[in-house]
Amino acid sequence: MLEARLSQTLLLKKIVDALKEIIAQGTLDCSENGLELQSMDNSHVSLVALSLASDCFEKFHCDRNVSLGLDLKSLGKVLKCANSDDAVTIKAVDRPEKITLSFESDGKERTADYELKLLNLDQDHMEIPKKDYTCFIQLPSSEFARICRDMSMFDESLTIACSSKGIRFLAKGDLGTANIQLSAGTAMDVSIEVQEPVTQSFAGRYLNTFTKATPLADRVKLYLSDERPLLVEYPIEDYGHIRYYLAPKVNDPDF
Amino acid sequence: MLEARLSQTLLLKKIVDALKEIIAQGTLDCSENGLELQSMDNSHVSLVALSLASDCFEKFHCDRNVSLGLDLKSLGKVLKCANSDDAVTIKAVDRPEKITLSFESDGKERTADYELKLLNLDQDHMEIPKKDYTCFIQLPSSEFARICRDMSMFDESLTIACSSKGIRFLAKGDLGTANIQLSAGTAMDVSIEVQEPVTQSFAGRYLNTFTKATPLADRVKLYLSDERPLLVEYPIEDYGHIRYYLAPKVNDPDF
Amino acid sequence: MLEARLSQTLLLKKIVDALKEIIAQGTLDCSENGLELQSMDNSHVSLVALSLASDCFEKFHCDRNVSLGLDLKSLGKVLKCANSDDAVTIKAVDRPEKITLSFESDGKERTADYELKLLNLDQDHMEIPKKDYTCFIQLPSSEFARICRDMSMFDESLTIACSSKGIRFLAKGDLGTANIQLSAGTAMDVSIEVQEPVTQSFAGRYLNTFTKATPLADRVKLYLSDERPLLVEYPIEDYGHIRYYLAPKVNDPDF
Repeated sequence: MLEARLSQTLLLKKIVDALKEIIAQGTLDCSENGLELQSMDNSHVSLVALSLASDCFEKFHCDRNVSLGLDLKSLGKVLKCANSDDAVTIKAVDRPEKITLSFESDGKERTADYELKLLNLDQDHMEIPKKDYTCFIQLPSSEFARICRDMSMFDESLTIACSSKGIRFLAKGDLGTANIQLSAGTAMDVSIEVQEPVTQSFAGRYLNTFTKATPLADRVKLYLSDERPLLVEYPIEDYGHIRYYLAPKVNDPDF
Repeated sequence: MLEARLSQTLLLKKIVDALKEIIAQGTLDCSENGLELQSMDNSHVSLVALSLASDCFEKFHCDRNVSLGLDLKSLGKVLKCANSDDAVTIKAVDRPEKITLSFESDGKERTADYELKLLNLDQDHMEIPKKDYTCFIQLPSSEFARICRDMSMFDESLTIACSSKGIRFLAKGDLGTANIQLSAGTAMDVSIEVQEPVTQSFAGRYLNTFTKATPLADRVKLYLSDERPLLVEYPIEDYGHIRYYLAPKVNDPDF
Repeated sequence: MLEARLSQTLLLKKIVDALKEIIAQGTLDCSENGLELQSMDNSHVSLVALSLASDCFEKFHCDRNVSLGLDLKSLGKVLKCANSDDAVTIKAVDRPEKITLSFESDGKERTADYELKLLNLDQDHMEIPKKDYTCFIQLPSSEFARICRDMSMFDESLTIACSSKGIRFLAKGDLGTANIQLSAGTAMDVSIEVQEPVTQSFAGRYLNTFTKATPLADRVKLYLSDERPLLVEYPIEDYGHIRYYLAPKVNDPDF
C-alpha cells in the first residue's frame, strides 16, 4: 500500500509537466525509499529518469513495493484541477487498478478526490552506470532553455563544444549560422569543469523537450564525454532529480 | 424613445460577454422600469433572463416601451471598441431600425458613435414562476466556474448532490472519476440552506457557458429542487441579475 | 565595410517588427550618413521608407556605400534570440554575401553571433518630394492604432475627414456605422493644423500594418492633401523615421 502526502501540489505539477511531453505513459516504481520512474521517450531515442526520495514528502508510507502504470497526460489533466498550494495525497492499494489523488485546500473547506485508472505497462528497468564525464557544466536552466529554443530556429541539429575557455552552442542552416558563447563567471552563474574538450551534435528537438523541466530547478547540469550520451540533470531540491540521456549524432559536425 | 446612459461601459461589456456565447440574438425589452431580455439558448435547451432596473443608469428615459432585436456578437464587437471607463449612451427612437451607442472619454476629447442595425425577432416572453426551491447555495462565482471547467474534463455530465453536510460535484468518465466537496464555512464563503437533499445531473457544457457571467458577480446563487430546472443566478449589484435555467438530465446519476 | 553598434537591441527589434509585416525583403542602403531602406509593400500598393542617421549608433563606421539585401522575416527571427538590452553590432564587408549580427550581454559573459545570407534584390530608389500638405495631425500612436483596428471591424475602407473642428474617422459596413471624432486638446495630446479641409478614404488593412510601428514612437504624424498620398510618419527619436505612403481610394466616400 502506498500513501504519500505533499504539502504543496506545485512540485508534482512541475514534475508531471516535465515528463508528459516526452513520455506518454510510464511506470512509477514505489518503495520505502521513495518514487522512481524510468522510460524511453515516445520515439525511443532518449531516456528519462525521475528519482524522488521519501524525505521529499510530508508523509510517506509504502510497506510493499508497488508499480503504478500511469498515463501522464491524464495525470496532468487532474493536476490542472488542483491549486498549486493545495496539499495532495497519493494513494494506491497493493496490486492496484487505480490511483487516488486527494487535494485539500487550506482549512479543508474544499476537498477534491480524483481516481485514475492504471495501465498495464511492460517496462524493463535499465541500470544506468553513472560513470565519470570529462566535461561538467552548470548554467541557469532558463538560459539553457533559451539557447535550445533559439538554436532550433536555425537547424534541427545543435552542436555543443565544451573547452576550458567556455561552452559554445552552434547551429547552421538555410537561414544562416548561430554561435552562442558562454564563459564561466559570476554574473550569469556559469561553471565549467573540463578534463578533455568535447564537441558533439544533438537533435535539438529532444533538448527542447528536456527543457520542459526548467521550472523544477534554477540551474541545470550538463555532463558530456566522447562517445557517451549527454546527461542533462535537473535537481529537485535535495530530494532527487530528473535526468535525461541523449546519444550524440554519429556524423561529425561541420564546425 | 429610449435614452439610457451608463457612467462606465464596463458593466455593459460584462453583460454582453455573459450573453453572447449562449444566445446569438435576443430582444431587449425596454420600459420605464428598465431593461429585460429573455431567450432560449442557441440549442433551445436552457433559458437565460437578464433584468436591469432603470436605477442602474446615470440617466434613463423611456417614455414608450421599445423592443430592440439585437445581434449580440455585433454588439460585442462594438463594445470592444470602447474603453471600460468610457461613458456610454444607448439611444433608439420609437419603432426603431437601428440602435446608437455613443461613447465619451473623460473630458470628451474623443467621442465615438456606432449605429447597429436591429433585427426583427419573433420572441415570446415566458412567465417564469420563482417558486421555492429546497436547496439554496451561495458560493464564489470563480469557484463555481472552476468546478464546471474541471469536471467537464471527465464527463459531459456533471452531478450536483446537495445535502446539509455540503455540496458535492461528481463526474465519471473514461479518464476516471472526480469528486469535489465543498462544506459551508467562512474561508471560502460558501453558504448552504437545505430543506430536502437533492441530487441531479446536468449537461456540463451549458453550465460552462453560464459561467461566462462570472465577472458580473463575486458570488453566484444556485437553486435546486427535485424535478425542477436548476436556477443559476448572477446578481448585478443591487440593480438586477442574469438568471440561467437548465433542466436536469432524466436518467438517474450513477452516484 | 560597415560596422555599426547600438547599445541596445531594443531599437532594432522595434524597427524590424515595424517593417517585416509590410515588406518581406528590402535593401538596406548604408552610407557614412547612416542607413536607409525604401520599398513598396508586398502587394505594391503602399511605400515604406526608413531613415536612420549615423548619430543613432554608439559606433558607426561605413567607409564605402554598401547595399544589403535583407530577408526581414529571417532578420526578425535572429533578433528574437537577443535580449532587448544586449548591445548589437552589425557588420558587413564590401560587396558582402552575408551580414553578421553580434550580441553582447552586460559583462560579456554571453556573446552570440549570427550570420545571415544576403539576397540579391533589384530595387530602384525613388525620390519622394516632401511637398507641403494642407492637413497635419499629430496624435498618440496607440490611439491611431486602436482606431485603425476598431474601424476595420466595420469595413475594409476607412475615411479620414480632417477640418479645423477636428478629425473624424468613419466606416460603414454590414454591421452598421462607426464614427470616431477627436478634437484638439491637451488630455489626449492631439494637435491639428488645417489649411484646407480634406476627406479621403483608404484601405484599412494597409493602415493596420503601418501601426506595427507603434512601439517606435509615442506620437504619430499624419499628413493629408487632396489628390496626394497620405503620409504616416513615426519619428525614431531625433535620429530618423519610418514613413508610410498610401494613395487614397479613387471613389468618393459616402460620408
